[in-house]
Amino acid sequence: MDQQAMDALRARFGARIETGESLRDQHGAGDSWHPAAPPDAVLFAETTQEVSDALAICHAQGVPVVGFGHGSSIEGQVQAVRGGLCLDLSRMTRILRVSAGDMDCTVEAGVTRQALNEHLRDTGLFLPIDVGTHATMGGLASTRASGTMTVRHGTMRDRVMGLTVVLPDGEVIETGGRARKSSAGYDLTGLFVGAEGTLGIITEVTLRLAGIPEAARAGLYAFADIAEATECVIEALQCGLCLNRIELLDALQMRAINAWNGTDHPETATLMVDLAGSEAQVAEDLDTLGELAAGHGATVSPCATPEAYNALWALRHSALYAARGLRPGCKSLSTDVCVPVTELPAIIAGIQSEIAAEGVIAPLHGHVGDGNFHLVMLFDPDDADEQDKVRRLNHRLVEMALAHGGTATGEHGVGLGKKIFMEAEHGPALGLMKRIKQAVDPKNILNPGKIFDL
Amino acid sequence: MDQQAMDALRARFGARIETGESLRDQHGAGDSWHPAAPPDAVLFAETTQEVSDALAICHAQGVPVVGFGHGSSIEGQVQAVRGGLCLDLSRMTRILRVSAGDMDCTVEAGVTRQALNEHLRDTGLFLPIDVGTHATMGGLASTRASGTMTVRHGTMRDRVMGLTVVLPDGEVIETGGRARKSSAGYDLTGLFVGAEGTLGIITEVTLRLAGIPEAARAGLYAFADIAEATECVIEALQCGLCLNRIELLDALQMRAINAWNGTDHPETATLMVDLAGSEAQVAEDLDTLGELAAGHGATVSPCATPEAYNALWALRHSALYAARGLRPGCKSLSTDVCVPVTELPAIIAGIQSEIAAEGVIAPLHGHVGDGNFHLVMLFDPDDADEQDKVRRLNHRLVEMALAHGGTATGEHGVGLGKKIFMEAEHGPALGLMKRIKQAVDPKNILNPGKIFDL
Ligand SMILES: Cc1cc2nc3c(=O)[nH]c(=O)nc-3n(C[C@H](O)[C@H](O)[C@H](O)COP(=O)(O)OP(=O)(O)OC[C@H]3O[C@@H](n4cnc5c(N)ncnc54)[C@H](O)[C@@H]3O)c2cc1C
Ligand SMILES: Cc1cc2nc3c(=O)[nH]c(=O)nc-3n(C[C@H](O)[C@H](O)[C@H](O)COP(=O)(O)OP(=O)(O)OC[C@H]3O[C@@H](n4cnc5c(N)ncnc54)[C@H](O)[C@@H]3O)c2cc1C
Repeated sequence: MDQQAMDALRARFGARIETGESLRDQHGAGDSWHPAAPPDAVLFAETTQEVSDALAICHAQGVPVVGFGHGSSIEGQVQAVRGGLCLDLSRMTRILRVSAGDMDCTVEAGVTRQALNEHLRDTGLFLPIDVGTHATMGGLASTRASGTMTVRHGTMRDRVMGLTVVLPDGEVIETGGRARKSSAGYDLTGLFVGAEGTLGIITEVTLRLAGIPEAARAGLYAFADIAEATECVIEALQCGLCLNRIELLDALQMRAINAWNGTDHPETATLMVDLAGSEAQVAEDLDTLGELAAGHGATVSPCATPEAYNALWALRHSALYAARGLRPGCKSLSTDVCVPVTELPAIIAGIQSEIAAEGVIAPLHGHVGDGNFHLVMLFDPDDADEQDKVRRLNHRLVEMALAHGGTATGEHGVGLGKKIFMEAEHGPALGLMKRIKQAVDPKNILNPGKIFDL
Repeated sequence: MDQQAMDALRARFGARIETGESLRDQHGAGDSWHPAAPPDAVLFAETTQEVSDALAICHAQGVPVVGFGHGSSIEGQVQAVRGGLCLDLSRMTRILRVSAGDMDCTVEAGVTRQALNEHLRDTGLFLPIDVGTHATMGGLASTRASGTMTVRHGTMRDRVMGLTVVLPDGEVIETGGRARKSSAGYDLTGLFVGAEGTLGIITEVTLRLAGIPEAARAGLYAFADIAEATECVIEALQCGLCLNRIELLDALQMRAINAWNGTDHPETATLMVDLAGSEAQVAEDLDTLGELAAGHGATVSPCATPEAYNALWALRHSALYAARGLRPGCKSLSTDVCVPVTELPAIIAGIQSEIAAEGVIAPLHGHVGDGNFHLVMLFDPDDADEQDKVRRLNHRLVEMALAHGGTATGEHGVGLGKKIFMEAEHGPALGLMKRIKQAVDPKNILNPGKIFDL
């Protein structure tokens, strides 16, 4: 950013416009394998008014603005590829309102999932977005994040009821509201959810919460192969079992988990399943699931105690670290396609044979109830050839997913990493996205260069 | 439309551009109390290509185009207030694809809810959008419709996974797809859902279906007043009971139902509740609900047989006709606010005291699990004073709803009737809706004059 812009920002915010190198570096990469691109300056905003003032100045000066929550996004979403100001919202952490009766709340955008659920504990409510890391409401909303509980509770698209958003020129709008449903015009809330900070900066989020279930039971189901596991998932979905999570792990991922955690579970295609509801319902459905799984030749291991339940989900949450542990010192690229569930076996078999042919190590885990899975492809960051292989395999996988009605990204978002797939995925609809971007942000100051190039 | 435009349409479609007066009249009013406004001509489109060709011609000629499904919308949505072409999609009735394993399907926009569910019967699946009339997928999507099963299955927003849409200039795009979730860019699907035909004409819809539950049980619960009934609803929601429908009817609505159907249910604030799930779960939750209701002083009458179950829902579906039966020859205006559930008692009490003071007959029924209810306000169509009263009361109700975080319309949409409330409901966000409309339809040919004026 030029001196004039910097002066204008300093005139309003003084020394809070920070330019220290390490702070800028921390804000330039997120949790991704994409090259870092630090912003020119960072501002920790504390109110909607401050966000509005900062945007008004940047808009007038033509300075790019990148929203920042926890920086845990993995597709290069926070990279300031054209420099400019990073607006860090992580200090906007007030919980503004909780209504237990309506099972909703309004919070500032910097509130993390963990902080919110901690705050809610005594109400019997929680936000059922179970991502594998720390993240803020603004970031979760902006990437349309989800995680292991999507099969029951949906994604951020289903959880966000309303937003306070600052538009590129500093105007503050409120979208949606507290009604459970509305037919009053265009769904602006849905437009900002998943927009990765390219249309506006979110400062407040109204969320639909869920009740903590009376009972939860889990089990581990070891199958001969992924096709049998998938068949079992389809039947469980069709029966309407009270699934809270239904996670698939392949043989290699199970081997990695055993090695990492010192466990000795069968090293084969595995489902880890969580059922939630009333005591009676959970017990009944656990039996039904056991029968379905046995019908597909599975070894069935229900968790007998709360300790076993917790241990199982700790194993699941170790999956990424365990995967990386297969090759210490490596980096990893996580694929993120999502396809109709019935297409999973063919697509997984197809990509795994190509992975084997290339000699890449790539354990698989995923939210199979939604058709979303991740291959954690390991590569030596100093070996250009390996990096190329991994990129090519990711590309092939996306091609297969698109050919079967799927998407390049189920939950991680586009950022820089998935831009190349957007034309193939959306066709002429991509042109409409660009028209909308131009209408909302004609100067293209908000997170420019993300999702698509104009 | 001028002669040149008519000639251009006739050159492509010949005598299928119909201008007979009765046909135009049928297409000019919908099922509403708003004054009719017939289009200049009607075309029954049969393919996406035909829709595209018609739009390209109308775009070039500057002719307004109004999409038309079944014409059951009630806020003046289909009125051709600026003349032009009515594109009737009711002959696009092909069911293109059903995947039982993925619990989804793709159909043309003219398929009705009834036709779809008929077609799906042998698959064990259904579309859980239970509106009180016939309607097409294109119309249901365009009004973001819902109905009695929203408490469990959400609205059309939650059911539509993807669309084929023809843009104003005739370009055909596909939005969304068959993946259960995606983070690949802006939610265009969500933008067209609820847009009331102002942004594009929908020709195909991909829908997420639900499984027909193993068991369903219902009951009627008669309370002393609406506050007690609402408290019971809140508790039932918090307990996570397997609610499929939870409908509130006030004393006057119950009197109307008794009179219309020859029944003798208590004429007091009543919940009609439908539970769905496994046999055991439904039985358990019916007991729990009975206890909750009794705790609020209700008389509890569970349906003992499938016949009683069907009779109860037939009563509920007679509500509108029964209401109108209270004053034969009258017309009715249905209010449609939706508010946080905890706000219901105060708002209903507030409006009912004003209704009583004005001497208007207005029974109440609604989808109380979502906070959405309808007052069917009866008036003599030839009495301007009465009409004014009814309008004023509707206005008052919307004001109260907005003051409590609610919306002017939970499910019927804006059309002509709710335009006046959009500024109060959305504030500056309304300006953003207009910018989006202008970006997508710069010539303002698609259903002009609906939702807002430019
Ligand atoms: C170990 C690990 C596990 C993960 N597991 C999951 C998972 O299970 N499911 C899943 O969906 N994701 C997962 N992720 C990805 C990541 O957690 C999500 O993308 C998360 O939503 C990012 O939140 P954040 O607060 O860190 O956002 P950031 O990374 O700071 O920002 C993400 C994007 O949102 C924008 N943004 C942030 N805040 C705002 C705001 N207030 N207004 C406007 N734009 C804003 C940024 O500009 C950027 O484009 C995982 C990541 C890691 C590292
Ligand atoms: C007795 C009765 C009961 C009702 N009960 C309910 C209820 O319980 N819940 C509820 O939500 N609604 C209810 N409604 C309202 C109505 O049924 C819904 O609004 C329905 O969605 C309209 O569908 P339709 O096919 O009749 O659409 P139409 O009335 O033909 O059109 C509705 C709007 O959508 C546009 N449109 C139609 N098709 C397309 C298309 N293919 N592409 C683009 N735009 C299009 C039209 O231009 C118009 O703006 C009820 C109506 C009546 C008369």
